[in-house]
Amino acid sequence: MDAAITYRVPYADTDQMGFVYYGNYLVFFERARNELMRSLGFTYRELESLGVGLPVIEASLKYHIHAQYDDLLTIRARVADFSGIRVRVDCQVLREDKLLVEGWTRHAFMDLKTGRPARVPLIMQEKLRQFVGAETKE
Amino acid sequence: MDAAITYRVPYADTDQMGFVYYGNYLVFFERARNELMRSLGFTYRELESLGVGLPVIEASLKYHIHAQYDDLLTIRARVADFSGIRVRVDCQVLREDKLLVEGWTRHAFMDLKTGRPARVPLIMQEKLRQFVGAETKE
Amino acid sequence: MDAAITYRVPYADTDQMGFVYYGNYLVFFERARNELMRSLGFTYRELESLGVGLPVIEASLKYHIHAQYDDLLTIRARVADFSGIRVRVDCQVLREDKLLVEGWTRHAFMDLKTGRPARVPLIMQEKLRQFVGAETKE
Amino acid sequence: MDAAITYRVPYADTDQMGFVYYGNYLVFFERARNELMRSLGFTYRELESLGVGLPVIEASLKYHIHAQYDDLLTIRARVADFSGIRVRVDCQVLREDKLLVEGWTRHAFMDLKTGRPARVPLIMQEKLRQFVGAETKE
Repeated sequence: MDAAITYRVPYADTDQMGFVYYGNYLVFFERARNELMRSLGFTYRELESLGVGLPVIEASLKYHIHAQYDDLLTIRARVADFSGIRVRVDCQVLREDKLLVEGWTRHAFMDLKTGRPARVPLIMQEKLRQFVGAETKE
Repeated sequence: MDAAITYRVPYADTDQMGFVYYGNYLVFFERARNELMRSLGFTYRELESLGVGLPVIEASLKYHIHAQYDDLLTIRARVADFSGIRVRVDCQVLREDKLLVEGWTRHAFMDLKTGRPARVPLIMQEKLRQFVGAETKE
Repeated sequence: MDAAITYRVPYADTDQMGFVYYGNYLVFFERARNELMRSLGFTYRELESLGVGLPVIEASLKYHIHAQYDDLLTIRARVADFSGIRVRVDCQVLREDKLLVEGWTRHAFMDLKTGRPARVPLIMQEKLRQFVGAETKE
Repeated sequence: MDAAITYRVPYADTDQMGFVYYGNYLVFFERARNELMRSLGFTYRELESLGVGLPVIEASLKYHIHAQYDDLLTIRARVADFSGIRVRVDCQVLREDKLLVEGWTRHAFMDLKTGRPARVPLIMQEKLRQFVGAETKE
């Protein structure tokens, strides 16, 4: 299961080296994750309305080519792993067919009231399992 | 009543023109406002714990000289006006004695649960009135 | 002359009050200005390639309703004034038909090498004058 | 060789979950790296004035506890590895004695004009080697 968005780089994202500042790619990843969830049939906003959040517990990035101002980027996100309480999402940032930056984030389902681990809502579990495939276990 | 902080500009704040991106000065203003409240004897965090927030309803900025990477800035904030339900804070960004950017923000006290206007807690009112002076009315 | 973009609010733009952080609207304004220039027939990137930049010298914002996570916003930009060396752009942020935030920015054409005021390239002047109308003078 | 800074979390850094947004820690890392270089006796600004930049090629983060608004954080940076053309810096974000987030970034020295790999200036090499120790090779 994957999703892709297009994104036009504003001046705000650049730094004085003329590249997109390295921390901003984590925002790009989030934009793609949001659409990934939407394409799964529920949004992150809906997940929160059920009292469940999905904070990041780990992130990793490789910068091959730095994006620049006014680039029209494609950002892809894919559910790479799902264990019932954790999910890993792989992301790629591309300019035309060129891979600029890639990475992944790992998230844990959390009860927003208590801050403790939470089971993912059943309806979401089914969809996640379906797309990741039964063989992937964390 | 005023407060001042010093702030070292990171690469993150710059854009490809080599200046601090124009939206980041509103973050600078906030950093100084936070210390202004702390110097008044209560923090914004404490205000929120009483169920009251202070969202911005208006902002204005004049950019005279643009700050640059690694500049050590001084950011000043001053309560300029207080009416019981609204407060205006004036801010200045300086590099040594040079005024780079100035502006102000206007805020309304808001009940965080209902989203409706709220009276500022009495203890805060007294301190605000004391510093603004009896003559300033919005 | 005006342009409009749509923009999906990421988590990154929000703050703990659950609203879009007030400084981020200046990034929204920039996103719309970029498309405004593109719709004028040249991009800001092209302007810079001619050695001319357009830094902000003044900004003003009014916050009526705060945008929230996952909102699909429309951001409009319009050339409101043009004097040959300065330009003012008016911006609006809407959710469906509701006006959330409005404001404007004033910019000065600047020689990127010297940092001094620059005349806007002729081809751009003509287009700007055409859209603003002959009667508007700064 | 290591350096540490203190940093007060502004509202700008938070998101609607009430935590510091996960991408902002990369800005925290940068703030500490800047002071690390300053403590080595030359600043990143000076490195750039020699025509050499130090863009990030890889980053990794582990989020144990999320920082919150108004937290007074300590951010530590340490040169972990240096190979003559690449350097790895380890970073930690702490609140009092508690480790909140840790990670590292890997950087490559780059000629700012050509965008190609560059040798680090000799004076900087010596200091880096001295602190990392002769035994660490990438």
